[in-house]
Amino acid sequence: MAFSYVSHLYCPKCENTYNVEELNQLCECGSPLLVAYKMNKLKENFKASDLLQRPTDLWRYHELLPVQAKDNVVTLGEGFTPIVGMSKTGKNMDIPNLYMKDEGMIPSGSFKSRGAAVGVSKAKELSVKELAMPTNGNAGAAWSLYSSQADIAATIVMPVDAPEITRKECIAAGASLYLVNGLIGDAGKIVGQAVKDYELFDASTLKEPYRIEGKKTMGLEIAEQFNWEVPDVILYPTGGGVGLIGIYKALQELQELGWVSKDKMPRLVAVQAEGCAPIVKAWEEGKSYAEPWEDAETIAFGINVAKALGDFLILDAIRKTEGCAISVSDDTLLKELKTVASEDGAFVCPEGAAAFAAARKLRENGWIKHDDNVLVLNTGAGIKYPETVGEEAPVLEIGERILRNSAFHYKT
Amino acid sequence: MAFSYVSHLYCPKCENTYNVEELNQLCECGSPLLVAYKMNKLKENFKASDLLQRPTDLWRYHELLPVQAKDNVVTLGEGFTPIVGMSKTGKNMDIPNLYMKDEGMIPSGSFKSRGAAVGVSKAKELSVKELAMPTNGNAGAAWSLYSSQADIAATIVMPVDAPEITRKECIAAGASLYLVNGLIGDAGKIVGQAVKDYELFDASTLKEPYRIEGKKTMGLEIAEQFNWEVPDVILYPTGGGVGLIGIYKALQELQELGWVSKDKMPRLVAVQAEGCAPIVKAWEEGKSYAEPWEDAETIAFGINVAKALGDFLILDAIRKTEGCAISVSDDTLLKELKTVASEDGAFVCPEGAAAFAAARKLRENGWIKHDDNVLVLNTGAGIKYPETVGEEAPVLEIGERILRNSAFHYKT
Repeated sequence: MAFSYVSHLYCPKCENTYNVEELNQLCECGSPLLVAYKMNKLKENFKASDLLQRPTDLWRYHELLPVQAKDNVVTLGEGFTPIVGMSKTGKNMDIPNLYMKDEGMIPSGSFKSRGAAVGVSKAKELSVKELAMPTNGNAGAAWSLYSSQADIAATIVMPVDAPEITRKECIAAGASLYLVNGLIGDAGKIVGQAVKDYELFDASTLKEPYRIEGKKTMGLEIAEQFNWEVPDVILYPTGGGVGLIGIYKALQELQELGWVSKDKMPRLVAVQAEGCAPIVKAWEEGKSYAEPWEDAETIAFGINVAKALGDFLILDAIRKTEGCAISVSDDTLLKELKTVASEDGAFVCPEGAAAFAAARKLRENGWIKHDDNVLVLNTGAGIKYPETVGEEAPVLEIGERILRNSAFHYKT
Repeated sequence: MAFSYVSHLYCPKCENTYNVEELNQLCECGSPLLVAYKMNKLKENFKASDLLQRPTDLWRYHELLPVQAKDNVVTLGEGFTPIVGMSKTGKNMDIPNLYMKDEGMIPSGSFKSRGAAVGVSKAKELSVKELAMPTNGNAGAAWSLYSSQADIAATIVMPVDAPEITRKECIAAGASLYLVNGLIGDAGKIVGQAVKDYELFDASTLKEPYRIEGKKTMGLEIAEQFNWEVPDVILYPTGGGVGLIGIYKALQELQELGWVSKDKMPRLVAVQAEGCAPIVKAWEEGKSYAEPWEDAETIAFGINVAKALGDFLILDAIRKTEGCAISVSDDTLLKELKTVASEDGAFVCPEGAAAFAAARKLRENGWIKHDDNVLVLNTGAGIKYPETVGEEAPVLEIGERILRNSAFHYKT
């Protein structure tokens, strides 16, 4: 029994194929590459029931992951994050079957650890010694930490405005970190130059084919956790969009294996911020590619991506699943963040809050039906974003007494 | 089949018993109360194999938890945190079988969520509407969040020096938060007064009997995850010590059920900071109780507890298991934090780093043997403690190039 049933790499645009035993980045045509598996052999040898006795991390799906030797797995116990009912928020939104997959409960507190675990493991398998990447913070933190375990030297470039804690994670992990007075696109250009100058492996979003396989495990888990049914709607905060592409890929693979029905695909929703909504614009205009967004700005920093390399894959996934793309304002998402915390006790990241706010908006306009099973992806822990909560608390001196009439409740 | 096999409350000091259907705080004699279960019935009706198909959260052990009606469970998917091998750090310490249970991967990023989930659920079951507690930050954050889901109003008092992010969690959850210019003991006095003034439920550490049952699940999980064997040594960063008491209680209960052997109990190690080491002092002096520590101070804020109400229970657990108590300096734990992050990719909290540093020290002095299976509890996510990493990164302007000879690696 093979540890992995990986077959080859293929280009979703020009259909060129590539060898998985060699180090690859983009296709010759400039498109990201995707990973193909030996699906017929998998169908014979891999059954859903095999999973029952396995560890509860993303490596339980190793047959559907690209790492070929178990020894190359770099892991911190990531994956199989809980799906929890959000009953009070759901009631408040008139979506009684509202669920959250909480990607805050993962190493480094963000779903980026999935891509890093699989991406770094595969890089190790392919003997990468040095990699570089631009990041809005969380991916750089995750790749730094996993790279340290894999003895890979990581060079990370992030905007000065990226969440401060992500700098600390890179530094603690021993990465070479640089900040740039600009956006992630500017960081990308600096990385591009360094990759050329020093022959580094380019681990930028979708410029290596394996990160998406890590993100794909969210889709595998959603199906397993819903007992091989799928929810009606999945809302995903979309920057580079790798998670959405990955979830779509996972569900297609599970359909091919026959583990989920071919009759129902969840409607995938790409959620963006009003200050950076290139995918929403392209979707509304019926385009296959997105134009770069000018002057991108949002407090939901993880989705502040002006131009996504995988835009055509995101738009395709939304259309094929009869999903949609929608944006919310920063004010709206910050308000929703408070609602979710004070109603259901979940302190989510601003990107996750954007997805909750989008669910509310889509229920209001009728796109989400009352009875839909709706899953929101909270892509990270709220504790990485102290700036989303502005209020301060009163300070007492030793021996002072709490005066009840002065006690203020923040809850509205 | 009962959801819970809870029987009654008992005092470990004077052996008084209390009813679990009534709201109880301390014993009349001033001691914390512990929860007893109907062990004979449990032995008949509850088998380890029952767990196989259950959700991977701490409620999988509901028979051994005090909440009697499933509807009262307040949950965010907490528990069943991963145990990961720390192979590079372990090699570095000459402890090849070094493991970490990572309690950072839990709602609110700290193991305090276990106590909060069970404590708040039971409070809800007992119709509590308002509770109050002093905290060094993380417990207050967790109890605020779970209380919001349970519609319980929470009043939280924490030192001004507590980790800033924990304030934000309390505020986002809608709790009434007060800071105090002092230590947790000063916060405790303010809470004690408010409890009297406003008839609040006192949720202070060990002043209600159920938090420990939540913490106990760490011990249940450790046994299950080690396949009903137990490690040789467990290192636990000790402030109030509820987790250590809980792990010991869990293992005793599992021995009684026959799920783990009575022949082997892990040696439990209470790890403290040199700036606040009352348990270490009492252990070294052979005392049963600890004296309050004067001028307590450490960067590992969660274990900055000058006087633990359960000191005698901690000291008893250490002695009965042939464990020990040991302290480490702030410098040592900060250095260890960097080692763990840059070797194995785990960004741990300072309390967890203290436990790693203690393992190193105990291996050096021979107390830990080369072949021991050693488990370190990392009680929270490093991302809650940005101040543990002081270095800053260089800032580039747009279009600037990374000059390799200027690239500094933080790794030593």
